[in-house]
Amino acid sequence: MKIQSKQPDTGTTIFTVMSKLAGDYGALNLSQGFPSFNCSEKLTDLVAFYLKKGMNQYAPMAGIQPLREIISQKTFELYGVNYHPDSEITIVSGATEALYAAVTTIVHEGDEVILLEPCYDSYTPAITLNGGIPVYITLSPENAYKIDWELVKSKISEKTRLIMLNTPHNPTGTVMSREDLNQLAEIVKDTDIFIIGDEVYEHIIFDEHEHWSLLRNPVLKERSFICNSFGKTFHVTGWKVGYCLAPKQLTEEFRKVHQWLTFSTVTPIQYALADFLKDPDNYLSIPKFYQDKRDKFLDCIKGSRFSYTPAQGSFFQCLNYQNITNENDFNLAVRLTKEIGVASIPVSVFYHQKNDFKILRFCFAKDDETLEKAGEQLLKL
Amino acid sequence: MKIQSKQPDTGTTIFTVMSKLAGDYGALNLSQGFPSFNCSEKLTDLVAFYLKKGMNQYAPMAGIQPLREIISQKTFELYGVNYHPDSEITIVSGATEALYAAVTTIVHEGDEVILLEPCYDSYTPAITLNGGIPVYITLSPENAYKIDWELVKSKISEKTRLIMLNTPHNPTGTVMSREDLNQLAEIVKDTDIFIIGDEVYEHIIFDEHEHWSLLRNPVLKERSFICNSFGKTFHVTGWKVGYCLAPKQLTEEFRKVHQWLTFSTVTPIQYALADFLKDPDNYLSIPKFYQDKRDKFLDCIKGSRFSYTPAQGSFFQCLNYQNITNENDFNLAVRLTKEIGVASIPVSVFYHQKNDFKILRFCFAKDDETLEKAGEQLLKL
Ligand SMILES: Cc1ncc(COP(=O)(O)O)c(C=O)c1O
Ligand SMILES: Cc1ncc(COP(=O)(O)O)c(C=O)c1O
Repeated sequence: MKIQSKQPDTGTTIFTVMSKLAGDYGALNLSQGFPSFNCSEKLTDLVAFYLKKGMNQYAPMAGIQPLREIISQKTFELYGVNYHPDSEITIVSGATEALYAAVTTIVHEGDEVILLEPCYDSYTPAITLNGGIPVYITLSPENAYKIDWELVKSKISEKTRLIMLNTPHNPTGTVMSREDLNQLAEIVKDTDIFIIGDEVYEHIIFDEHEHWSLLRNPVLKERSFICNSFGKTFHVTGWKVGYCLAPKQLTEEFRKVHQWLTFSTVTPIQYALADFLKDPDNYLSIPKFYQDKRDKFLDCIKGSRFSYTPAQGSFFQCLNYQNITNENDFNLAVRLTKEIGVASIPVSVFYHQKNDFKILRFCFAKDDETLEKAGEQLLKL
Repeated sequence: MKIQSKQPDTGTTIFTVMSKLAGDYGALNLSQGFPSFNCSEKLTDLVAFYLKKGMNQYAPMAGIQPLREIISQKTFELYGVNYHPDSEITIVSGATEALYAAVTTIVHEGDEVILLEPCYDSYTPAITLNGGIPVYITLSPENAYKIDWELVKSKISEKTRLIMLNTPHNPTGTVMSREDLNQLAEIVKDTDIFIIGDEVYEHIIFDEHEHWSLLRNPVLKERSFICNSFGKTFHVTGWKVGYCLAPKQLTEEFRKVHQWLTFSTVTPIQYALADFLKDPDNYLSIPKFYQDKRDKFLDCIKGSRFSYTPAQGSFFQCLNYQNITNENDFNLAVRLTKEIGVASIPVSVFYHQKNDFKILRFCFAKDDETLEKAGEQLLKL
């Protein structure tokens, strides 16, 4: 049967391509964004406990009460804002589902959605599958990926319904500041534009930087879907449990979509996470843990011909190779995988159009030995 | 912020309403479709093993290889048909995601989709959220819910793009026959109409009945997305792991959607299921297990004033109460919960329009004591 594709231009994702290549060539895989180490034993013990206890049937559609409650409490303690567990917090199957559900909730046929590139690869298809029109703003390494809010403002039209943002940022490792929030608030106040804040790297933030969650600005909070994931924070990307914070009216509509996408999410893991979150050390220790990883990686490539700004957040470090070669980033990423055995991601894939920025993204959520070996190889360039 | 709802008519689902009511009144909850007992200890041991082993990072987007392979093998052994694990099987977050992804894959704005009512509650919103138009065919208890294929044929138009079917059937407990498949094949051959087969109760089938999976008819197989779920088969509705079987070209497009909806599904559970499926007894024992449950329930209500046909499959028994009262089914379901402490689901909610069929659905996936107590109460009517 012939099928009329809704996504004729979508091929295999770069993550699958690079991971396969890394496998074929036995390369160190710093391409895909997941840890090479296991999560806390406390956490797997908790899941095992709830499995045995028989917490294996459908969770409530919005997620189990204790998990929503502890998220509410944590959000209040960290940022001083309230989200009611009953009506403003929803547990979903990873941030990916949160993003898709939020876009589906908001975007009607013909609506425009502003995206800042480079961006996570699910944003554009979530918009187009829902009949929306992505409007792109390019952030460039020459500008340290700083957001030009005047440019954002200039892209707003009658049809703009949504702006999608991500902080800490994949792939660039940059974070938004309080001032960024103010400027955005200035632009959207008195409009009916909604916001999606992708904050999956909330706890992976370094140095003097602070997480300026969009919910910290009241103008933004009232119109935002804050999408988060336990996968990144607790080294369990494969569990696919995340959540969405949004004001009551937005959550009502969001849940109506969520219930048809997946309905509910792995019950025993929800119970385990609810318990695990009770000890704030479990997440407050994460920034240092990953800062050490970042520092380790930067240490390992000290003296290389790459140039870079240290990542401010996320578990990715971008390296600029313009001093090394003139190749495009895709070719170089393939060549490094094959020739020196280090796989990375070419950052041009995070843009909707080809560009020639000469940046590779390396994931440093890896054991020290892997980082050391990768560093040794990268020093040869 | 005011939101322009895409689902203004969607409220709280009946399942949530009845379960809450059951809780409030301490009633026996035979409403929502999940077991009151735990799954096999072997299965939870396997999950615990893989959790400890560190299989906690992203699974491949299509699912882990061993799980796809064993599903391929099982499908071949049961039905003699081939689905290639690499290109025709995708692991997803429950049948709910499989259904939503398949509908999203196929339905373009304005396409018509034929549904047989009563049907599972996610079908209609999956269609409308994707811009499709549901076209309903009513199956009625007076006709033992038999499908009138001439009527189906008469509903096909230029715009028909998809037909959604479910066997064994929730809520009616009926199953499709080989002859049903032949008649459907006769209708769709030489058309470009696709089919979604919701077969989550594949292994919950009774008496002389056989599971006539749509994939057993070649005309249907080539155009079908077969949606399945381990939740129902292994008493783990809360794990939300399911799969979709579809020919290569269909799977290619299906995966493009799946990767943006959730991307991948709980890794340690996928490994556990792959091992568990290696012993066919684990699923071949299921029909008898649930047939005993059905028989137990029917035994417990022997002598009651309900009339019924024994369920042929699924874990639901419909009971007709026209000899008892003239109330509508919603009122009666509420009243029984409050007054005799037994919660059920009014079958009218599975239709898009009100009707007066006087049928309640009872889930018999419950421990014997619950079934006995429920029976005692129902005998009082
Ligand atoms: C920016 C960003 N958003 C969302 C996701 C997806 O999160 P999850 O695995 O919880 O679906 C990722 C994962 O890489 C990400 O980097
Ligand atoms: C007919 C039917 N399809 C799909 C589902 C959903 O399956 P899952 O829990 O795997 O998403 C159900 C659950 O009740 C069902 O009865």
